[in-house]
Amino acid sequence: MRNVLAAVCVTCGAEYEGGAPVYNCPACGGILEIIYDYPYIKTVFTREKLDGRRDPTMWRYRELLPIEEDSQLPPLRVGGSPLYRAERLGERLGIRNLYLKDEGLNPTASLKDRASALAVVRAKKEGFSAAACSSTGNAASSLAGNAAAMGLRSFIFVPERAPVGKLTQLLIFGATVISVKGNYEDTFRLSAAAIEKYGWYNRNAAINPYLSEGKKTVSLEIAEQLNFAAPDYVAVSVGDGCTIAGIWKGFKDLYAAGLIDKLPKLISVQASGCCPVNRAFETNSPIARMEENTIADSIAVGVPRNGDKALLAIRESGGLAVNVTDDEILAAMKLLGKTAGVFGEPAGVTGTAGLKKAAEQNRIPADAVVVSVVTGNGLKDTASAQKATGDFSSPQSGLIHIPPDMDIRVEYLGNR
Amino acid sequence: MRNVLAAVCVTCGAEYEGGAPVYNCPACGGILEIIYDYPYIKTVFTREKLDGRRDPTMWRYRELLPIEEDSQLPPLRVGGSPLYRAERLGERLGIRNLYLKDEGLNPTASLKDRASALAVVRAKKEGFSAAACSSTGNAASSLAGNAAAMGLRSFIFVPERAPVGKLTQLLIFGATVISVKGNYEDTFRLSAAAIEKYGWYNRNAAINPYLSEGKKTVSLEIAEQLNFAAPDYVAVSVGDGCTIAGIWKGFKDLYAAGLIDKLPKLISVQASGCCPVNRAFETNSPIARMEENTIADSIAVGVPRNGDKALLAIRESGGLAVNVTDDEILAAMKLLGKTAGVFGEPAGVTGTAGLKKAAEQNRIPADAVVVSVVTGNGLKDTASAQKATGDFSSPQSGLIHIPPDMDIRVEYLGNR
Repeated sequence: MRNVLAAVCVTCGAEYEGGAPVYNCPACGGILEIIYDYPYIKTVFTREKLDGRRDPTMWRYRELLPIEEDSQLPPLRVGGSPLYRAERLGERLGIRNLYLKDEGLNPTASLKDRASALAVVRAKKEGFSAAACSSTGNAASSLAGNAAAMGLRSFIFVPERAPVGKLTQLLIFGATVISVKGNYEDTFRLSAAAIEKYGWYNRNAAINPYLSEGKKTVSLEIAEQLNFAAPDYVAVSVGDGCTIAGIWKGFKDLYAAGLIDKLPKLISVQASGCCPVNRAFETNSPIARMEENTIADSIAVGVPRNGDKALLAIRESGGLAVNVTDDEILAAMKLLGKTAGVFGEPAGVTGTAGLKKAAEQNRIPADAVVVSVVTGNGLKDTASAQKATGDFSSPQSGLIHIPPDMDIRVEYLGNR
Repeated sequence: MRNVLAAVCVTCGAEYEGGAPVYNCPACGGILEIIYDYPYIKTVFTREKLDGRRDPTMWRYRELLPIEEDSQLPPLRVGGSPLYRAERLGERLGIRNLYLKDEGLNPTASLKDRASALAVVRAKKEGFSAAACSSTGNAASSLAGNAAAMGLRSFIFVPERAPVGKLTQLLIFGATVISVKGNYEDTFRLSAAAIEKYGWYNRNAAINPYLSEGKKTVSLEIAEQLNFAAPDYVAVSVGDGCTIAGIWKGFKDLYAAGLIDKLPKLISVQASGCCPVNRAFETNSPIARMEENTIADSIAVGVPRNGDKALLAIRESGGLAVNVTDDEILAAMKLLGKTAGVFGEPAGVTGTAGLKKAAEQNRIPADAVVVSVVTGNGLKDTASAQKATGDFSSPQSGLIHIPPDMDIRVEYLGNR
């Protein structure tokens, strides 16, 4: 890979030329970060070149990705998600220049498709026939879908609380799903042992340095969609930490490649019931385990494996941390649906919930350009969405039950 | 609208200059079809012009759409869905040149977004503040989502069997949902009466001639994605008949505008338990009511309101009709997921199920270029998808339950 200089350990600083030797740092076990040859990239990756590219997917940014020129690219359309200007939502939040990045329109309906797409490219290139991960759901379905499209087998370890819609999606993609009676951490440990024993490609975000490289493409897109003017703020929900770290890496890479001339501040939003990253940020202390008490299952991660990368990202960006309750998350779900026509899953709208709270606390200037990343589609977890709409047997939910009788109906609706 | 010549009644042939006067034909109540000024369109709608357009949505085809130049366009990204070359699925089906059009990646996860997006543009232009429809689900959610994004109210009439995921989606979009204790036909009748009484914009496919104009954009995209070589066959599921009619209209418009030089044959696929259109086609008789016995709820339409338009389309194209059982639909769902990484809802994969059957019956030449339209996302109805995967308590489903204990797990997986 001519464009990759080295992989550097974020924990001990050890440097490995030409990219990651395997997964973690052989010296200390820390997570590696991929470092590019930016002077070289400046010569091959320009706005003019991008302008001429028809490919709308994440692969339009291949000069900034750790893939070989002859790598087989996956057939699914990963990336190229829309960035909506959200005027009516912005009015409600008191933010004049608000944009929504709807990642729920990715092939398996979440931002994690970006990481999994990169993972299956690397797995294929390195000769694996199967890939595996542990996940609360979206990493899993994205790996299963992208592996299926690429002709790879997949083995998925899920904690038993994963919603049924997410499990079904995995099984339809032909994955072997191992449901672990335990939490995310138990699931993670088991997957690690099995992956080692069976020699599958490891798509765990704690281990695999290439995943945040896939995720960073969401930032490359945001920047391009804003005509290479970086936003002032980017709000996103945080669970394991890999996504916010990837978002930060994307903007930093663009900056280093000379394509944007400033960096945004990150707004790290966690659920009050599970906010180990934000707690560490606010108290300036190491990340410590927390319970996983939130409806937003995709970010219910008590021991975030990419927490250090996430903390570094929030701090480097001069960002802020916001915690939101489950009720605030459910309210944000309705607000996004009603004002923007965007249906996000609980973790998907958590960033917007946090943005709303930060705006109410006057922590966001009214004229700032703000992007809120909706990380996953609400169709993945309609049971939670139902909690947002309220009891279906009550008209408060918006649902009216009537018999097919004209007169009754017409009178009834007249009162609405 | 400089590009629209007239609206013509498909039943009595009456012609109305400048487009549809209201909804149905004032003379006979038949459904109208929009006729364009093709010689004019040839001068303003060229491949070169399209090549220069960045907009990936259905609005890139605006010269072939019944909208004014100053019409406000909806913010959601409707259209621009991917066309995947499905090699491994093609091998399984014995079709060398097979493509999948994944309409499940539209904003509310079905092809019907195309019709609803056009409807809300027309509703806004004509000064309505609310729009309404009756629907088994996808027309409903697409109207609710697109109306929300456009700042319109929506009133949705659904039959009581609509899956909970679809209802939830509507309510999140802020729609008022009227659940009718009856079938699709009862629901339709009620919605018509309420729409008349309250003066809402009517987005019912039986009434509104503009909806198939929105739907036809899927064909414009397919043609453009195939570099303006029309496919030999297009397979699609048929319920009310509006979608297949819209698909046909799209290819005919492109042909009339000189952008393609042949027309595809349509493969009309219905569920064996509800196939009034196919039965009429095969027996060369008028459409007669059928029971609605199929898992594919989106196409469970016993009295198809656009049946005549659909029949005409299949016949004009020299197409074929295929009926599939619910088991064949569920098998197609797994096949699509496993071989292509595409998760469709039951009605969404019915077209592929029919294509498989037609190929097995040697009704499709092996070298034909075939497009199978996946009309909706499987996440909309995971309860049905679960029937495809089998009982979650059985390992046959692909799901293995294990305690978080290393040794047990490792041995167990070793036997897979």
